[in-house]
Amino acid sequence: MDAWQDRPVSRTAPCSPVGLHRVLEPAGVLPQAATRLDASPELWPDETRIAVSVLNLDAASFRQLITKHDGDGDAVRREVLDIVAERGKMQNPVTGSGGMLVGTVAEVGPEATLDVRVGQQVTTLVSLSLTPLQITDGLARWDGLTEQVPCGGTAILFGRTIAATVPDDLPPTMAMAVMDVAGAPALTARVVEQYIARGRTPSVAVIGGAGKSGSLSLAAARDAGASTTVGIVPFEAEADLLTDVTLADRVVIADARDPVALSTAVEEALGAPADITVVCVDVPGCEHGAILATSPQGGTVIFFSMATSFSAAALGAEGLASDVTMLIGNGYTPGHAEYAFDLLRRSSGVRDLFTRRMAHESSGTSA
Amino acid sequence: MDAWQDRPVSRTAPCSPVGLHRVLEPAGVLPQAATRLDASPELWPDETRIAVSVLNLDAASFRQLITKHDGDGDAVRREVLDIVAERGKMQNPVTGSGGMLVGTVAEVGPEATLDVRVGQQVTTLVSLSLTPLQITDGLARWDGLTEQVPCGGTAILFGRTIAATVPDDLPPTMAMAVMDVAGAPALTARVVEQYIARGRTPSVAVIGGAGKSGSLSLAAARDAGASTTVGIVPFEAEADLLTDVTLADRVVIADARDPVALSTAVEEALGAPADITVVCVDVPGCEHGAILATSPQGGTVIFFSMATSFSAAALGAEGLASDVTMLIGNGYTPGHAEYAFDLLRRSSGVRDLFTRRMAHESSGTSA
Repeated sequence: MDAWQDRPVSRTAPCSPVGLHRVLEPAGVLPQAATRLDASPELWPDETRIAVSVLNLDAASFRQLITKHDGDGDAVRREVLDIVAERGKMQNPVTGSGGMLVGTVAEVGPEATLDVRVGQQVTTLVSLSLTPLQITDGLARWDGLTEQVPCGGTAILFGRTIAATVPDDLPPTMAMAVMDVAGAPALTARVVEQYIARGRTPSVAVIGGAGKSGSLSLAAARDAGASTTVGIVPFEAEADLLTDVTLADRVVIADARDPVALSTAVEEALGAPADITVVCVDVPGCEHGAILATSPQGGTVIFFSMATSFSAAALGAEGLASDVTMLIGNGYTPGHAEYAFDLLRRSSGVRDLFTRRMAHESSGTSA
Repeated sequence: MDAWQDRPVSRTAPCSPVGLHRVLEPAGVLPQAATRLDASPELWPDETRIAVSVLNLDAASFRQLITKHDGDGDAVRREVLDIVAERGKMQNPVTGSGGMLVGTVAEVGPEATLDVRVGQQVTTLVSLSLTPLQITDGLARWDGLTEQVPCGGTAILFGRTIAATVPDDLPPTMAMAVMDVAGAPALTARVVEQYIARGRTPSVAVIGGAGKSGSLSLAAARDAGASTTVGIVPFEAEADLLTDVTLADRVVIADARDPVALSTAVEEALGAPADITVVCVDVPGCEHGAILATSPQGGTVIFFSMATSFSAAALGAEGLASDVTMLIGNGYTPGHAEYAFDLLRRSSGVRDLFTRRMAHESSGTSA
């Protein structure tokens, strides 16, 4: 099953906890910025090898591939195989994004500090865009038409990395979906707690509240003690869904790209701009609306959308004379996966929403 | 001098403090995102009109124009006139950026809340990319070869805006240069103070420490009580300059685009990663280095460079398992211009550096 399992660690060259020793080109960059990685399964002393079972392609990457190939699954599969063979990692050259994976720990290097044991089922919490990967089964069990890719192969985790064991009580596919967005609820909760520590119980608006990261962020805001939460969604069906699962105190419909419509909707729902606004929709052009919907005296905007434009946010706040703190959503916070699983277990609303979302996606109607 | 000065305010249509009533197209966006503004000099009740004396084009915008026209100043001047005539504002269509202006307050609407009086000399603190502007002198006094543009015309400030009076003790051109980067020292000082309030006296690394925003950020970090400050510069001449003006406790040379070189240099200078790293160089590809140079347990990176890539920062921190807080540098903080002027007055090092930088720029060797 894992041909490398019983071989001694034979790499003795110096290795780097961030994986610089695996970068083939260009020299000097981190694995994420590399065009080609050494993905060979043999370990350096601080690395961990995973026997891969499922890849989860990033939504933007999968959409680009399926559109490019006009829905031809065979062509999509061939391109994914080509990318991985050429780059030593699954990083879409157009979107730059990767995804994540589920697998079983196959070998732990003698100097690895990752808290996992051989045989445990884990998901990686770092992007596939920087994870050395070899595919060994030609993706023969995948039709090229789903984001989740049954896969045989090996992946490498570096010394400084993050992975989480898949909880026994959750299906691996749901665990993977939760982990993919686990940074959002953890950072939302932290920011709410910081306000409370300073003596101000904050209101929280979540743009894209009916999505995966949005619903978890709403649950986290409430869990951390927010005064009022409001979920903003783009249309009626999403509003019904979010209302059904009772994750937000208020649910409003607004186009996040329309600054006036968005800020008016938030103000009407809360009676004032939000103290904290969390942006969870992957649509360009939401920066001005998010800033305008947030208190210009000490509010905070957390941008989790990869479609965020840095300059639109920076110049937008200045142009609005808004003293908001603007955070780039960091996908990593210590304990974030455990916290997200905990929210899922404690909140039937989050479970309901994830179950419905995932049923939609496997039937091909992903939002 | 100002033909509109003695006319009553005749606009009675509803106006918006963020200037939505001046947007001609497309409908519903903020003035910054608009392609065309109504720049007519007649005021709505909460507006303020400025008689313009000097425009300061954003460096990226000016560089694009002068390169496009192969150094032909007449062609640059014609294009600036065309842009302003067409768009009703000076926003470079390629770079999206604007600049700022100096002028004299010509009329204050009866409902304006901006704290200025007719006749005062002011600089605008919002970008030209959202400021309604009419040019009336054909830019006849400008040769098209400098970022600073002698200009006759009128500009409009909205109800919710920011401007600062030009201090009597500073040359207007230096005041304008300081205001242009005033957001950086104010936010740097605020973040240092937040660390101190939580019981941790932070070290501060400033990437691009010998530039205008960088030098002010170093002065602000020291002023706010940072433990140790380090300025990172790209080559020897900049190191000599920064060492001469004694604004940083340590000065080191490193390429900010090389994550390993940068983080190694910062660690050697401080004995550990920086608690706070401030990115002040307008070069793409500094995100990973800045994150790696910053404490992965509770460090903060403040990105002031408009060349920052949101996704490189977000995915970079996750890939490095770094629990850093990442801030989008907001160009506005209450009192930021006054604070920057104060630093300039109190620090001979900052004054020296600005004087030398501005001498370089007017001789055409801008960095």
